[in-house]
Amino acid sequence: MWKKYISNILQNIKNNEISVEQGYQQIIESVTGELGFAEVDIARSLRTGFPEVVFCLNKEDADILEIVKKIKSKNELVLLTRARESTYRLLSENFKEIQFYNRSGVITIGTIKQKAGLVSVVSAGTSDIPIAEEAFVTAEIMGSKVEQYWDIGVAGIHRLFSKLGNLRKSRVIIAVAGMDGALPGVIAGLTSCPVIAVPTSIGYGTGTGGIAAILTMLNSCAPGVSVVNIDNGFGAGYIASLINRIGM
Amino acid sequence: MWKKYISNILQNIKNNEISVEQGYQQIIESVTGELGFAEVDIARSLRTGFPEVVFCLNKEDADILEIVKKIKSKNELVLLTRARESTYRLLSENFKEIQFYNRSGVITIGTIKQKAGLVSVVSAGTSDIPIAEEAFVTAEIMGSKVEQYWDIGVAGIHRLFSKLGNLRKSRVIIAVAGMDGALPGVIAGLTSCPVIAVPTSIGYGTGTGGIAAILTMLNSCAPGVSVVNIDNGFGAGYIASLINRIGM
Amino acid sequence: MWKKYISNILQNIKNNEISVEQGYQQIIESVTGELGFAEVDIARSLRTGFPEVVFCLNKEDADILEIVKKIKSKNELVLLTRARESTYRLLSENFKEIQFYNRSGVITIGTIKQKAGLVSVVSAGTSDIPIAEEAFVTAEIMGSKVEQYWDIGVAGIHRLFSKLGNLRKSRVIIAVAGMDGALPGVIAGLTSCPVIAVPTSIGYGTGTGGIAAILTMLNSCAPGVSVVNIDNGFGAGYIASLINRIGM
Amino acid sequence: MWKKYISNILQNIKNNEISVEQGYQQIIESVTGELGFAEVDIARSLRTGFPEVVFCLNKEDADILEIVKKIKSKNELVLLTRARESTYRLLSENFKEIQFYNRSGVITIGTIKQKAGLVSVVSAGTSDIPIAEEAFVTAEIMGSKVEQYWDIGVAGIHRLFSKLGNLRKSRVIIAVAGMDGALPGVIAGLTSCPVIAVPTSIGYGTGTGGIAAILTMLNSCAPGVSVVNIDNGFGAGYIASLINRIGM
Amino acid sequence: MWKKYISNILQNIKNNEISVEQGYQQIIESVTGELGFAEVDIARSLRTGFPEVVFCLNKEDADILEIVKKIKSKNELVLLTRARESTYRLLSENFKEIQFYNRSGVITIGTIKQKAGLVSVVSAGTSDIPIAEEAFVTAEIMGSKVEQYWDIGVAGIHRLFSKLGNLRKSRVIIAVAGMDGALPGVIAGLTSCPVIAVPTSIGYGTGTGGIAAILTMLNSCAPGVSVVNIDNGFGAGYIASLINRIGM
Amino acid sequence: MWKKYISNILQNIKNNEISVEQGYQQIIESVTGELGFAEVDIARSLRTGFPEVVFCLNKEDADILEIVKKIKSKNELVLLTRARESTYRLLSENFKEIQFYNRSGVITIGTIKQKAGLVSVVSAGTSDIPIAEEAFVTAEIMGSKVEQYWDIGVAGIHRLFSKLGNLRKSRVIIAVAGMDGALPGVIAGLTSCPVIAVPTSIGYGTGTGGIAAILTMLNSCAPGVSVVNIDNGFGAGYIASLINRIGM
Amino acid sequence: MWKKYISNILQNIKNNEISVEQGYQQIIESVTGELGFAEVDIARSLRTGFPEVVFCLNKEDADILEIVKKIKSKNELVLLTRARESTYRLLSENFKEIQFYNRSGVITIGTIKQKAGLVSVVSAGTSDIPIAEEAFVTAEIMGSKVEQYWDIGVAGIHRLFSKLGNLRKSRVIIAVAGMDGALPGVIAGLTSCPVIAVPTSIGYGTGTGGIAAILTMLNSCAPGVSVVNIDNGFGAGYIASLINRIGM
Amino acid sequence: MWKKYISNILQNIKNNEISVEQGYQQIIESVTGELGFAEVDIARSLRTGFPEVVFCLNKEDADILEIVKKIKSKNELVLLTRARESTYRLLSENFKEIQFYNRSGVITIGTIKQKAGLVSVVSAGTSDIPIAEEAFVTAEIMGSKVEQYWDIGVAGIHRLFSKLGNLRKSRVIIAVAGMDGALPGVIAGLTSCPVIAVPTSIGYGTGTGGIAAILTMLNSCAPGVSVVNIDNGFGAGYIASLINRIGM
Repeated sequence: MWKKYISNILQNIKNNEISVEQGYQQIIESVTGELGFAEVDIARSLRTGFPEVVFCLNKEDADILEIVKKIKSKNELVLLTRARESTYRLLSENFKEIQFYNRSGVITIGTIKQKAGLVSVVSAGTSDIPIAEEAFVTAEIMGSKVEQYWDIGVAGIHRLFSKLGNLRKSRVIIAVAGMDGALPGVIAGLTSCPVIAVPTSIGYGTGTGGIAAILTMLNSCAPGVSVVNIDNGFGAGYIASLINRIGM
Repeated sequence: MWKKYISNILQNIKNNEISVEQGYQQIIESVTGELGFAEVDIARSLRTGFPEVVFCLNKEDADILEIVKKIKSKNELVLLTRARESTYRLLSENFKEIQFYNRSGVITIGTIKQKAGLVSVVSAGTSDIPIAEEAFVTAEIMGSKVEQYWDIGVAGIHRLFSKLGNLRKSRVIIAVAGMDGALPGVIAGLTSCPVIAVPTSIGYGTGTGGIAAILTMLNSCAPGVSVVNIDNGFGAGYIASLINRIGM
Repeated sequence: MWKKYISNILQNIKNNEISVEQGYQQIIESVTGELGFAEVDIARSLRTGFPEVVFCLNKEDADILEIVKKIKSKNELVLLTRARESTYRLLSENFKEIQFYNRSGVITIGTIKQKAGLVSVVSAGTSDIPIAEEAFVTAEIMGSKVEQYWDIGVAGIHRLFSKLGNLRKSRVIIAVAGMDGALPGVIAGLTSCPVIAVPTSIGYGTGTGGIAAILTMLNSCAPGVSVVNIDNGFGAGYIASLINRIGM
Repeated sequence: MWKKYISNILQNIKNNEISVEQGYQQIIESVTGELGFAEVDIARSLRTGFPEVVFCLNKEDADILEIVKKIKSKNELVLLTRARESTYRLLSENFKEIQFYNRSGVITIGTIKQKAGLVSVVSAGTSDIPIAEEAFVTAEIMGSKVEQYWDIGVAGIHRLFSKLGNLRKSRVIIAVAGMDGALPGVIAGLTSCPVIAVPTSIGYGTGTGGIAAILTMLNSCAPGVSVVNIDNGFGAGYIASLINRIGM
Repeated sequence: MWKKYISNILQNIKNNEISVEQGYQQIIESVTGELGFAEVDIARSLRTGFPEVVFCLNKEDADILEIVKKIKSKNELVLLTRARESTYRLLSENFKEIQFYNRSGVITIGTIKQKAGLVSVVSAGTSDIPIAEEAFVTAEIMGSKVEQYWDIGVAGIHRLFSKLGNLRKSRVIIAVAGMDGALPGVIAGLTSCPVIAVPTSIGYGTGTGGIAAILTMLNSCAPGVSVVNIDNGFGAGYIASLINRIGM
Repeated sequence: MWKKYISNILQNIKNNEISVEQGYQQIIESVTGELGFAEVDIARSLRTGFPEVVFCLNKEDADILEIVKKIKSKNELVLLTRARESTYRLLSENFKEIQFYNRSGVITIGTIKQKAGLVSVVSAGTSDIPIAEEAFVTAEIMGSKVEQYWDIGVAGIHRLFSKLGNLRKSRVIIAVAGMDGALPGVIAGLTSCPVIAVPTSIGYGTGTGGIAAILTMLNSCAPGVSVVNIDNGFGAGYIASLINRIGM
Repeated sequence: MWKKYISNILQNIKNNEISVEQGYQQIIESVTGELGFAEVDIARSLRTGFPEVVFCLNKEDADILEIVKKIKSKNELVLLTRARESTYRLLSENFKEIQFYNRSGVITIGTIKQKAGLVSVVSAGTSDIPIAEEAFVTAEIMGSKVEQYWDIGVAGIHRLFSKLGNLRKSRVIIAVAGMDGALPGVIAGLTSCPVIAVPTSIGYGTGTGGIAAILTMLNSCAPGVSVVNIDNGFGAGYIASLINRIGM
Repeated sequence: MWKKYISNILQNIKNNEISVEQGYQQIIESVTGELGFAEVDIARSLRTGFPEVVFCLNKEDADILEIVKKIKSKNELVLLTRARESTYRLLSENFKEIQFYNRSGVITIGTIKQKAGLVSVVSAGTSDIPIAEEAFVTAEIMGSKVEQYWDIGVAGIHRLFSKLGNLRKSRVIIAVAGMDGALPGVIAGLTSCPVIAVPTSIGYGTGTGGIAAILTMLNSCAPGVSVVNIDNGFGAGYIASLINRIGM
């Protein structure tokens, strides 16, 4: 797009339809004004198949509908996070192939054509499932094949061992845990996959809001762990998919 | 002592050597003034074999010598924590049966007559050994039989499994860890012993000073863990010995 | 169970029904897959009489009922913490010998056969009672004889002294306090029992959420104190029972 | 002083030596420019006997000498805090009646004429003495009669009881403690004196820098406690003296 | 009471009605069991006119009524803090001379006989008034003459200057402020009264919950300030009254 | 005003209508009592056109009406922040030229006569708009010409580049951002305008309440940034207007 | 520079020396590769007279010399912050018109041609002078006329009043304070200048590292204050100069 | 190894040399005792080419030599982090192909056979280079092709743009920054590579120890970022290499 625009100017100069000075002014305007936008557009187009994402918190349902309509016209897949059921009902009147994950509040619109690679999502406790589900759906709609292992906490570490064989086949593992947040480090010590650790805000007292979990993960004795923000299941699913795509 | 003092007063009243009012005054003086001291002395005498403890930080060697002399005259065992080698050299000129643990700076004076029960001290990394040693020697001089398992971190959790059989024979386990502090929770999930968790100040960045380790321990998913202050090996050895003594 | 499974394989080898290679594959599968689970099961069976515990927060009543039914079929005693009255009403339609402690939200199902040892639970203020009650019931259902001393704060330290005689008979003391959290340290200075300190979230301003209380307890001048998370009455009751059982 | 200055202007107006405009200018200059200073001087003169205070940290010995010379010319008493021995040596060549308190680094110059009222300074541990001494000397040079009780920690609370009779005679008590900082609250629960609590930076791990001590004091269950900054012995001695002076 | 009890025992010994051993047993029982209580009672009686205080938060109205009835039978004055209007309505059906301060939720029962000394309560902003009122009423019912200066913040420091003359007549000043908490330090720099600083939880962003205010106050450049917990108007009124009483 | 008052006194002295002593008393009263107030009034009058500001949080609508009536009688412009719609409805019955900005809760009364200079308000995300709007309206009613650029976050930094030309024409830029708070630093690195950074409380997990945003801004690598409190759009608009006025 | 480069390409196209495709490639290379750099250079040249700044901490003297030589060849003025005396000695052998401010470690090279506008730098205590000096020299070398007022703390607020007349003439005021950090708010309440607040790390206990000072400043009740990082005198001088330049 | 051991037992059973019971005992011993170790060994052997890592902090040079000798006998590559020059000198007397990176204190021993994939390491400031170098060398010795871009901070964001073309070719980007830590988020907004963010402890005041940098990174508005501990260059290089290896 930008190439066409610039080439046009150059052609006009060649054709003596505009002066060098005029050409410079037109180019500089585009460069300081719109280049960034254009360039990113190009970059975006390289990542075909990536959904646009709408963060629904603090947005009105009607506004969300408008936003989704605009995206949908350009994009086959849409991902909405932190949505309410009312949002889902409104959208489902307007779009087909829509799915609502009610534990995490995720909505997906469109059909995922192809799932490749393997991302495993492991969560420590039942309360961590909403965040794990957000990671799961994000990775899946971005094209990853995803497997999930719910409720495999360190308190009963034997539950982890029986899954190790499967886990070791992943290209990347997302490990979700609140409370003491020990799960990702233990997994990293037992596999050679990169582990994306997601602390959750599940905890109380000195662990309120996930602070103990995130500190544990950042200080993991086992190398091979990196960490996203507390409750950021979307972020974990997103970077896991970027990783999963490598070499494809 | 106090009994003798009070009985004396009562006898004097019986003998009419002092009035009821005088007796009351003498008793009340003793009660508000010295009772506590007397009473505690009696309590102390019940715990025969407990060493007196000298915290050496910020104390001059000469002063420490004086303190130890005073204690030694009443007590067969003395425990000194956070001592320097110079302290050891000075004391070793004055006392026999003295031992210096140079990694932790602990000094013991006297022979432990009897060791009973079993306290296990497990430490996660080489850097945690000074604190683990402080716990070890404290528990031992307080009469516990102590076994130690150095360098059994969660990063290589298999090292823990091979020791589980032995660990499960303990009456109480002291688990020492810095960094992510995950060790005590994992042990508690695999044994049914009470676990005293000791966070150490080993760590950097967000784990500086042991804050990540202590939060992990306080938020342990596995029940059966309680926690002492960061680097408080002495405190862990002390309460472990109190526990170990139960039912003896 | 695992022994039977392995012995079977070995017998098949001996009988030449399977090859050494096949036997190895069957063993390795069991080891990497299910060993942990089996092993823990055996460990669990050694601790007969321990209740299974259900943490009810964020769980639906109907789900809780299903979980309890499953546990109850294998276990005589069930402990539920942080339960609502509606949970109690639903469960009481399904189970006998059920009891609801409404201040702490604890439910117990089943009859405790035997109570032994002595655990004392001391709480500083009226507001600390819910947490103290959680500790009390947990210790009791795990088989401890428990005595309680409500509302014995340091502000009126004389109330503590009159109970000292009784307290000193305990095998382990649970001390529950919010605000300045000074109670456990004072008790540890006056008895030779191990003290499990439970900070509560009672407090305001700089003490909000129990932070002042837990710091006081972790820094107790008197040795013999270890600490659980803020408001973790269950955790305190649990480790106190592990301790109480020692030597029985 | 200011009165004389203003009255002079007014007299000059009355005498027609200056115009109303000139008088206004002279007054306004004094008011916006120097009034504050003058006024404070007057206020200061009402507090006869208060020493000027020099905080020596980060000041050169030579500079301190100059400052003290200036103060000494107007004031019989000088108080220096956080001084080094070299400061003392230099000053002692220039001033008589000089005294150096080496544990706290306090220097006093001049003789206290009169000591009245009673301020008691109680400290919990040996390590708290430097701060307690700073409070002691500050209160004394500000004219208070001061009594000291070193090393009366809560870990051995009986030591406190034997001093209660004396403590209750104080007009105000300064209670100095590090670690768990429990002492001031216990004292306030046992006396009806106002208690000025001084947290010290003595502590380690979660108590590093005095944070546990100050939180305990601010959240004291017993009313009658107010708190100064960590290690601020001077501040405690100062306000205790202001209090002690009331009604004299 | 205790004197009568002990004297009785002594008289019985004198009369040979009991042996020295029996007397000792009776005394020791009283001492370890009930002395503290008795002693404190005596101490309490020395502080005639002090009200009993009921902290109403988390207490049922019916329970509060029972508590107040018990207190009222022994005490002419009762102070209730953090009360609701429903509490007031219930109590006002049972007691005369009752007053409700609705901004702070304080209730007083009984007539203050005598007010003496002068405590000034200064508050920085309109939002700080509830806490200031709690301090005001507490000081008043404890027998202090109290004057109040609402809404005198540092942002318009001139409002403070016009009150300085009056403020300087106080025996003690309570300064209440949220946000930047600068007021108490400014007052201490301009008067020679002891200043009790009360940070309030008024603030937002980095000042949320009063943290900025309390840090400012603890670090006041001007000496003569000590600090109570955030929002602890009661505590400030209490210690101010203890101070105000000195020398009366 | 004050000049008139003082000159009057001086004239009376000159006229011998009052004595020097009387004159001094009258002056001193004015100085210690009301000077500050008078002086500030004069200062205020120099800032003609500045609106009075009413912070509506925790104020009753009826009270706000009274306050606004008082201000309106002296001032053409009134600014109300953190107002509710009910406040707006009540005020709109009483005042003309009133406007309600419902996203930020700002109300303005009166017509801004003149807007000069240029203040640009840039906000990073949709959620930051309420705070940005508060800054916008504050700056505008204080007389600044204001331009706004909503939703220009660092995640899509190209959107910023297309606005750089316009931004560089500002006399001062207000940059509003939550989450990672990176916007102000990037702007400061690309322009030579002073940047007032406003962190917002938009964020979750480790960014809860705006803490990550404010730390980023305070530690900006690019010089030319200074920071106001989290969510303090009013404060940013206020200082930006003070700056914008310079040299006018 | 960039204009010349682009115009050249365009001219070559016009002259048919290169094709449109070639021209596009040359332009795009410049845009994605070096535009930013070029553009900023142009921007820089607009700010004639701004010094380049070298932050010397952690840099070798020899390296600093090389850096300064490079800058000096393009720039008349150089500013170095956090320099050592050894740096000064080395540089003074190589450059004329060099000046070392030893309290702050600032070095300036070159002569400031013109100083305009008025920036006032006020510092609260003697210990704050190094940071104040850094602000002072930064503002001055950036072309501001700067006046300084050392040691005007809030503890003796009268010292501030006598300077108010002068302060009010400033275009912008830099207020530097540690400890309670109250100075900037008080100044903002008494002037209508924008105030750049600089917290310093002077403080101890709860004020360690400047945390109390910065919180006070961010929560200032008086509007008109914005804040830079703790000890960031350079940053304050820099933004003050950007402000001071407005309208020149 | 373990296979051989187990197969041996099975063969012995087949051969009737041991009974089924004996075989079970031998297997169970191996499983509970040494399985973990064996299993991990096998896992390790799958990751051929991974170096063993020695963390040198707090280790004696002589001890390090012993450790390295042991590793070297089994492993072609050794990586040492946080080493001193003295360590390097000692090791270089014993090993060939040794290299010392003095800015980061990293030592490598052995020749990397093959470098594949592309990891880019970008650092924001000169002070961040030591950490960036640790990441660089770790990634390289683990077999990654690594490119580095030093000193590309957000303050001069144009420097980043000219490198974007190259950066976008990476399989994974490591972004290292202290101070405001804004770099990783900006990179993630401009590329579609996974970004491993490394906060460094470079900073002062509110950014001390890297706290501002890590919070910025965890709260990055741009998805595609995950974070390791402050100063953990090794951890970033390690996980980047795990990622880089995917699909090879």
